[in-house]
Amino acid sequence: MSRYFEDFKLGEVITHATPRTLTAGDQGMYMALYGSRFALHTSAPFAQAIGYPAMPLDDLLVFHTVFGKTVPDVSINAVANLGYAQGVFRVPVVAGDTLRSESEVIGLKQNSNGKTGTVYVHTRGYNQRNDLALDYRRWVLVEKRDHDAPAPETTVPDLPDAVTAADLVPPAGFASDGYDCTAAGSDKRFADFQIGDKIDHGPGQTVEDAEHQLATRLYQNTAKVHFDGFAAQAGRFGKRLIYGGHVISLARAMSFNGLENAFALAAINGGTHKAPLFAGDTVYAWTEVLDKAEVGDQGAKPGALRLRTIATKNQPCNAFPSKDDDATILIFDYWAWCV
Amino acid sequence: MSRYFEDFKLGEVITHATPRTLTAGDQGMYMALYGSRFALHTSAPFAQAIGYPAMPLDDLLVFHTVFGKTVPDVSINAVANLGYAQGVFRVPVVAGDTLRSESEVIGLKQNSNGKTGTVYVHTRGYNQRNDLALDYRRWVLVEKRDHDAPAPETTVPDLPDAVTAADLVPPAGFASDGYDCTAAGSDKRFADFQIGDKIDHGPGQTVEDAEHQLATRLYQNTAKVHFDGFAAQAGRFGKRLIYGGHVISLARAMSFNGLENAFALAAINGGTHKAPLFAGDTVYAWTEVLDKAEVGDQGAKPGALRLRTIATKNQPCNAFPSKDDDATILIFDYWAWCV
Amino acid sequence: MSRYFEDFKLGEVITHATPRTLTAGDQGMYMALYGSRFALHTSAPFAQAIGYPAMPLDDLLVFHTVFGKTVPDVSINAVANLGYAQGVFRVPVVAGDTLRSESEVIGLKQNSNGKTGTVYVHTRGYNQRNDLALDYRRWVLVEKRDHDAPAPETTVPDLPDAVTAADLVPPAGFASDGYDCTAAGSDKRFADFQIGDKIDHGPGQTVEDAEHQLATRLYQNTAKVHFDGFAAQAGRFGKRLIYGGHVISLARAMSFNGLENAFALAAINGGTHKAPLFAGDTVYAWTEVLDKAEVGDQGAKPGALRLRTIATKNQPCNAFPSKDDDATILIFDYWAWCV
Repeated sequence: MSRYFEDFKLGEVITHATPRTLTAGDQGMYMALYGSRFALHTSAPFAQAIGYPAMPLDDLLVFHTVFGKTVPDVSINAVANLGYAQGVFRVPVVAGDTLRSESEVIGLKQNSNGKTGTVYVHTRGYNQRNDLALDYRRWVLVEKRDHDAPAPETTVPDLPDAVTAADLVPPAGFASDGYDCTAAGSDKRFADFQIGDKIDHGPGQTVEDAEHQLATRLYQNTAKVHFDGFAAQAGRFGKRLIYGGHVISLARAMSFNGLENAFALAAINGGTHKAPLFAGDTVYAWTEVLDKAEVGDQGAKPGALRLRTIATKNQPCNAFPSKDDDATILIFDYWAWCV
Repeated sequence: MSRYFEDFKLGEVITHATPRTLTAGDQGMYMALYGSRFALHTSAPFAQAIGYPAMPLDDLLVFHTVFGKTVPDVSINAVANLGYAQGVFRVPVVAGDTLRSESEVIGLKQNSNGKTGTVYVHTRGYNQRNDLALDYRRWVLVEKRDHDAPAPETTVPDLPDAVTAADLVPPAGFASDGYDCTAAGSDKRFADFQIGDKIDHGPGQTVEDAEHQLATRLYQNTAKVHFDGFAAQAGRFGKRLIYGGHVISLARAMSFNGLENAFALAAINGGTHKAPLFAGDTVYAWTEVLDKAEVGDQGAKPGALRLRTIATKNQPCNAFPSKDDDATILIFDYWAWCV
Repeated sequence: MSRYFEDFKLGEVITHATPRTLTAGDQGMYMALYGSRFALHTSAPFAQAIGYPAMPLDDLLVFHTVFGKTVPDVSINAVANLGYAQGVFRVPVVAGDTLRSESEVIGLKQNSNGKTGTVYVHTRGYNQRNDLALDYRRWVLVEKRDHDAPAPETTVPDLPDAVTAADLVPPAGFASDGYDCTAAGSDKRFADFQIGDKIDHGPGQTVEDAEHQLATRLYQNTAKVHFDGFAAQAGRFGKRLIYGGHVISLARAMSFNGLENAFALAAINGGTHKAPLFAGDTVYAWTEVLDKAEVGDQGAKPGALRLRTIATKNQPCNAFPSKDDDATILIFDYWAWCV
């Protein structure tokens, strides 16, 4: 069942298994894993006051759930996760919703050595009403089963550096009048952020094996490198590797320190896992404001901040280490809604 | 309060304390602990499409909860858990249901050394409507408080090797027409399994102390060997021992790889914890198909597979190690419903 | 934003950020963290039978949530948590309720060295209907930013050793007739407890870093000493320090062994964290009955037991170690409702 490079066909749509009903239980577990404090995802009255019908689940819980379903079909034989692009959060997901995922193969490129190839997919996560909750593009380096299998025609999709602001989907019914900055934790609003601002997110979080395993199982992500410590002894790192999405969630939760009013994710422009994280390492993060966009009618709609969060291991971020710093493990470029 | 061997009376029914309302929170925690992917327990629409009124909680969460309540009364002074038999899952348990347990003493046999004896109980777990959700037999080796206490008359109940297929309780209202193999993750159906089939469940799961402790507390199982690392230093193993039920749940979740459509437990025929598991060990599992049974009208009812799962530690199962292999820690014999 | 000693003004009311909707998910996580067995918080039918409209969330989950919100404003620059007093549980909190916190500065006293000062706050936790769920006083030793800043006038509030029994708030609609001692786990009732009784709570619980981190994030408590192992290497202890509230919750859950019918917290008289706890340590606890009070009409109201729980590390409590024992880490003085 595990697909190798030569098993992917351009244009094929893969329906992934295991639809998942997310509940308050999953959100409670997510809270314990990251301690996020963005008020939209922790307070039902706060969410309702700004026009959400119910408190949405954390955006990254949705992302990891949609992503997790693709692993057995797309990346179980992946050598490397090369990137994400053009991810857009569309309909909020609330407790009781059921997510399912499908991936369309949008690009294929065999490597010159004939042993591996890059697969590009467009993954869509739907709720039980077939509303699109989230979609994104991703490309992974996948092994060939048979090195002699013929190479497919090379097709590389156009993947812009960032989602265009006009393509963001503002939360339906958003009512900025109901936004309570005191409850949210800061008076620093959209107008107060400037392009180029750098924000250190402060103290670090040391990660334990039990934590990242609980997280990765919650997402039903089955990649064995995260769980099988016995096999890992003979592997490249000699130990279990932490799911890159765990680092994204940690960094996003930490970013509350300074980004209190960047209350929800609007889009994922790109993500690079530059170096691996292992249990016992401590994660730090900082963010630079890359762009600002006013989307629609600012009387009712939130603004969008394009943010680039850099996470490091075992090095605080008060000196704003670059993406090329030896300590850098993650570069995560995204749009966030901000009042 | 802790019962010793001489405190058990044949025919006595012990009502265990602490009824437990299971919620979506418990199921979320269970998911994070094992990462199970059987669609019946992760997707409400999937469950409803095959006739369940609501998404049932994982069968083994139900088992561990019913079992946990018996520990303070039955096995707090146990030297060893000797076996399970004749366990039947009856009414599905859903979020919001409250489970309580009672155990009837159905057998007693003092050992020839006069220091210990075997206690046989028939444990029943009921929901808040007094429907029987699960019942099973179990026997444990219990210490005597007073070695001079007189031996009771020996009574050993008849405990067949397996639940008879006719005694299985198919899910009420089951509608096989609604079963979606793509969502469930495999096209391999009941008719495709043959007696004697051997299925390796693939990658292992390394277990951490935090994980098995979270699990065992979730089940309100109070056996101190699982929690008290200080006392354990002076004990037989020098460290905390992992609850055997944690291994059963891990192995069952792993068994999704190859048993995707064996969607729910029907019965527990037997379980043997052959060797202890400790934090840092990696669990692997494989399953053999022991029997097949068509139960009732196959147009509407699922079939039943009798399966024997063997779990090992620190040894992959691709070579199908026997139950007597040094690496084997669990032999779990059960019936599963399969479309 | 982080307040130093000179930033606190007598009479000021600080509204803390991040209101928090607590759900069944949080209660499920709490259960996995501590394994509490008090029936009021684990069985909805039990709760309803004694007059609660719904199963309340664990009292200490409520306390930690209210407390966690105060950390960024009150104690992020604290050198030490000096004490709690006059904490009263008022309206039960159920799944779906949203808690918010505010703290009134009720005392200030600069230390003679001019580098630190004690801040006294009265913290109130409200639900979404503005009912007071819990309030308590707390005092912390806070650093000054500027050692030359003028000292405020010294004001030290009157903080009695214990909440007066007349100030306790019995559960509304309590119906003792519906109390089921078998379900609760013991026939030892209010009348059976005597002042001076000492109760050992039995086996210990070894604590892992993953566990206390999950707990402390669940409470959105951001104190970096609990999470940042890299920074801790250069600190006073060389490692992460476990949140004191985690020890309180462990000790309370353990106290079920002997206090089965002391079914809910009524008040917190005081709490002292005498020594730090680290991952790998094993916690034990014992309790002394300090006082008994009949509150209102005993036909319908529960009695109140004033209890002092002492928790130790790496030393069992069967010999009832004193509060001054080297192994003692916590002295927790509280009132509990008991039938």
